[in-house]
Amino acid sequence: MLEGICEYRIPYADTDQMGFVYYGNYLVMFERARNELMRAMGFTYLEMERRGLGLPVIEAHVKYSRPAKYDDLVQIRAVISSFSHVRLRVDCEIRRDGELLVSGYTMHAIMNLQTGHATRPPEDIARMFAAAAEE
Amino acid sequence: MLEGICEYRIPYADTDQMGFVYYGNYLVMFERARNELMRAMGFTYLEMERRGLGLPVIEAHVKYSRPAKYDDLVQIRAVISSFSHVRLRVDCEIRRDGELLVSGYTMHAIMNLQTGHATRPPEDIARMFAAAAEE
Amino acid sequence: MLEGICEYRIPYADTDQMGFVYYGNYLVMFERARNELMRAMGFTYLEMERRGLGLPVIEAHVKYSRPAKYDDLVQIRAVISSFSHVRLRVDCEIRRDGELLVSGYTMHAIMNLQTGHATRPPEDIARMFAAAAEE
Amino acid sequence: MLEGICEYRIPYADTDQMGFVYYGNYLVMFERARNELMRAMGFTYLEMERRGLGLPVIEAHVKYSRPAKYDDLVQIRAVISSFSHVRLRVDCEIRRDGELLVSGYTMHAIMNLQTGHATRPPEDIARMFAAAAEE
Repeated sequence: MLEGICEYRIPYADTDQMGFVYYGNYLVMFERARNELMRAMGFTYLEMERRGLGLPVIEAHVKYSRPAKYDDLVQIRAVISSFSHVRLRVDCEIRRDGELLVSGYTMHAIMNLQTGHATRPPEDIARMFAAAAEE
Repeated sequence: MLEGICEYRIPYADTDQMGFVYYGNYLVMFERARNELMRAMGFTYLEMERRGLGLPVIEAHVKYSRPAKYDDLVQIRAVISSFSHVRLRVDCEIRRDGELLVSGYTMHAIMNLQTGHATRPPEDIARMFAAAAEE
Repeated sequence: MLEGICEYRIPYADTDQMGFVYYGNYLVMFERARNELMRAMGFTYLEMERRGLGLPVIEAHVKYSRPAKYDDLVQIRAVISSFSHVRLRVDCEIRRDGELLVSGYTMHAIMNLQTGHATRPPEDIARMFAAAAEE
Repeated sequence: MLEGICEYRIPYADTDQMGFVYYGNYLVMFERARNELMRAMGFTYLEMERRGLGLPVIEAHVKYSRPAKYDDLVQIRAVISSFSHVRLRVDCEIRRDGELLVSGYTMHAIMNLQTGHATRPPEDIARMFAAAAEE
């Protein structure tokens, strides 16, 4: 199955005074797994940018089930859950030793970086997104 | 109407290499307006914590309509949109010169900081949340 | 005297589990005052960038005297302390009700954004930096 | 030799609109290597906290030689460079494929977390800091 996976050690920087990871910082973890998802597809987000495409986030949703804490080693996983026309949805999960901490998704526009407008991706990238979404 | 409002000048720190504010950083702006919302109710979040109550985020949703940019002066606004039993929902909007950039909400548990469990807030705070939610 | 001044309300996001502002976040506060310093000189950093100049930080030093805490309203102040050839040094202070919390400086290269190399700034900007440094 | 070493993949979140890592974010990388340095000494910072000791940063210095960029895989290294009485200095370096990007140090107070005052660490920890500093 096509997925982006990475491990991440929580630094003090990510915590807040309640003693848990600050709620906004999980979105950076989502990004880390999305970057690995791209790499797993055989090209990096950097290469996509060089081909003139960007994937700006147009919607994000996060469900916080259990908090991550300082020095936790968490596993982050991203999969493409849908792809249609000019949009891509990526689902993410953050776990610690199998236990689900945080889940959610990001919806992305597929953008022509020169015009700043939504665009259909080139055939090879579209095929990969479609294949990944069908899994 | 009971609302939390603040202005915020976007620093370079909030931007990413696409030239816009990074998607996770808007959640910090949401928090800034929530802090002012509390203050507008006559007590601060700090005072609530001193009374043993916390409002951890259990769900967040963000819709990115238009990007904020470096040095933009944005207006952030938070209102309580629902309150029931042990949950509170706060709706947020970020605008630049009236134009809507980002909107969303956060759902909060009302938590007893000593036990770590959900709890009903004391009468005076509950009354205030309920009144704010009805507006 | 030419100075950049701003007030800043500490959000939960800036704190860590020790209950104070995380040490790296003060550098963002330094930036906020530097932005205001530029504005006080009659142009913004944004305008400088449009003229093809950047001020990347090549050195930073921070002395942490007392911690800032959540919901503190701090005052940040930046002044140009030296300017010579292709370098600029900015001194910063963060105070709460007059009490010094954090001080330090950043050293900046003056960079031609097209070539990526150090450069002397155009006459009008050089004059302003020199005047500010002499105060 | 006693050292803390870790690898870190730069996310989009760490960059700013100049296209490089924002200067404040390197301090989080320093922290990541310091955490590993502790682990290499046989106990974690978390365990030190449980024994009532903290290591708040009282001074930080950073020299930015070359910028890190999005998707770079950097190596971060921390060593104890001095230990005397109630202070500890940690030197850090960030490299990409051997090339030095950023270097600097943090000076830490050794703090009794209950009193909030500087303190000498217990014998076993002091011995370890002293041995590491002498290498």
